[in-house]
Amino acid sequence: MELWFMGTNAGMPIAERNVTSIVLRMPQNRGTFWLFDCGEGTQHQLLRTPFKLSKLEKLFVTHLHGDHIFGLPGLLSSRSSLGVTAEMELYGPPGIRDFVENAFRISDSHLGYPLRIYEIGEGEAYRDEDFIVEAAALDHRIECFGYRITERPRTGALRTDWLLEIGVPAGPLFGLLKSGQDVALEDGRIIRSEEAVGSSLHGRVITVLGDTKPCGNAVALAKDADMLVHEATFLADLAEKAGEYGHSTSIQAAETARKAGAKRLLITHFSSRYKQEDLAELESEARSAFPNTEAATELKPYSIPRGNVDDNRQ
Amino acid sequence: MELWFMGTNAGMPIAERNVTSIVLRMPQNRGTFWLFDCGEGTQHQLLRTPFKLSKLEKLFVTHLHGDHIFGLPGLLSSRSSLGVTAEMELYGPPGIRDFVENAFRISDSHLGYPLRIYEIGEGEAYRDEDFIVEAAALDHRIECFGYRITERPRTGALRTDWLLEIGVPAGPLFGLLKSGQDVALEDGRIIRSEEAVGSSLHGRVITVLGDTKPCGNAVALAKDADMLVHEATFLADLAEKAGEYGHSTSIQAAETARKAGAKRLLITHFSSRYKQEDLAELESEARSAFPNTEAATELKPYSIPRGNVDDNRQ
Ligand SMILES: [Zn+2]
Ligand SMILES: [Zn+2]
Repeated sequence: MELWFMGTNAGMPIAERNVTSIVLRMPQNRGTFWLFDCGEGTQHQLLRTPFKLSKLEKLFVTHLHGDHIFGLPGLLSSRSSLGVTAEMELYGPPGIRDFVENAFRISDSHLGYPLRIYEIGEGEAYRDEDFIVEAAALDHRIECFGYRITERPRTGALRTDWLLEIGVPAGPLFGLLKSGQDVALEDGRIIRSEEAVGSSLHGRVITVLGDTKPCGNAVALAKDADMLVHEATFLADLAEKAGEYGHSTSIQAAETARKAGAKRLLITHFSSRYKQEDLAELESEARSAFPNTEAATELKPYSIPRGNVDDNRQ
Repeated sequence: MELWFMGTNAGMPIAERNVTSIVLRMPQNRGTFWLFDCGEGTQHQLLRTPFKLSKLEKLFVTHLHGDHIFGLPGLLSSRSSLGVTAEMELYGPPGIRDFVENAFRISDSHLGYPLRIYEIGEGEAYRDEDFIVEAAALDHRIECFGYRITERPRTGALRTDWLLEIGVPAGPLFGLLKSGQDVALEDGRIIRSEEAVGSSLHGRVITVLGDTKPCGNAVALAKDADMLVHEATFLADLAEKAGEYGHSTSIQAAETARKAGAKRLLITHFSSRYKQEDLAELESEARSAFPNTEAATELKPYSIPRGNVDDNRQ
């Protein structure tokens, strides 16, 4: 899986950075992508990536501030104009339905695909056989959610070639080994399930938070996450301003990552006051509290590999 | 004055072209600009021009289709985030207020400047001592206006240096000459007002039409205009499709310009089916009916000089 940032600026677009939207590229067998937030110009940014709106499966909104939703009516309309008929789902705080439906009503827009809108609260927002998405409330000026995306672990494949080679007959013994049981062969040899089954695949955890001050739910959502996306609107010297506006500083983002035991941190949602060359300072401040931090750059992939379980026990 | 196109594509953005918005740069003494329509990404495009939102004085909306209005909430909000306190005015069809106010209510946006919203009908939309803006209904799928911007003519300046040089005393005679009267000097010479006053300045007429099929009001709004901006969504071979969707072909746009006696035509609002290299064909088709046509290019100035009255009598 990969994360791609369509925008990394807070509040409004500037020449160098757009407002918030984050692509989560889903595993290859799924072939789709999800979006987190949809600031104005998200569809324009997507035109500069490999992502086609026909493959947009779900869109999760953290909160209703304009820099996170004003791109929604246009993106949803364009997906229809392109002739896409595949259903898509939109999740967000109460009010998201009114926003989209009013924009469509006034502009006489009609979608050629089913759009399911879910106004969510805390708890499980979505679940299928591969992923669970949970939401929890953060601490911003308006209702704002963070999302924790949990991929289910996958048990390893049975090493059938090896079993046949050493003389284990195909049949019920394979099932026992696969299910975790050790088996005794007729010749007295013991085959241990552990040897017979490949490494199980770790289920990745990706946490994408909306705008927030430091809070307990931010830490809970990011617990042991492989990747945490956290806003860092300001440098540490503006902690007071950050608190006043319901935002975090670079160091506060890093402390949340550290407390949560996250593996990596991507900071984003930078105040317009910071030029591109200032982002290194936001990054290095954050690294002082959480070394594995990067300041997100737009329109490039951040890969989140699926290691096996042992790799992740380090 | 100048026109700049922030977008020239119909319906949705594509990699090479954005959706509709047109800057009218006002005369230098005014120092402001007006906008016609505000598709998504208009504020992003403005970042690539010399135009600052602080100088945005008025915004005229032709109709409520998404590709003409979805950039409004973001642009209006950013103007406030930038700290602009100067009032601005928004004109458009009924529904424009609901669209903007609902987006602001849901996103908890508050403007730091007075925004006056005028839901207009046909007739005079705006007037001041230099400009009159008139609106008339076009023929589209939903209510859609065209705008005619008329600059008032200015009488020429009195050639005072020359008058003093030839011995006309400053004083009441100057007033008479300026007002159009010829005067007799004490030495018997007759000074004709026509000689004493410079050329009067022609008031420019600029017509910006919304999406439309050919119709009488399009011609009326463009009557003798110095510049007509007309949509040309399709090449002439798709006239039937154009009619069905309430749009015009290149040749239909040109015929309107010709019937109206307009001086120049800029065509825009090209269907996504046309690549950049196809625009020359739209242009040459239009030129077959109205030679002084250009296919609008984004982010460059189209100058509309203020000639004197004689220049424009050719
Ligand atoms: Zn924000
Ligand atoms: Zn249009």
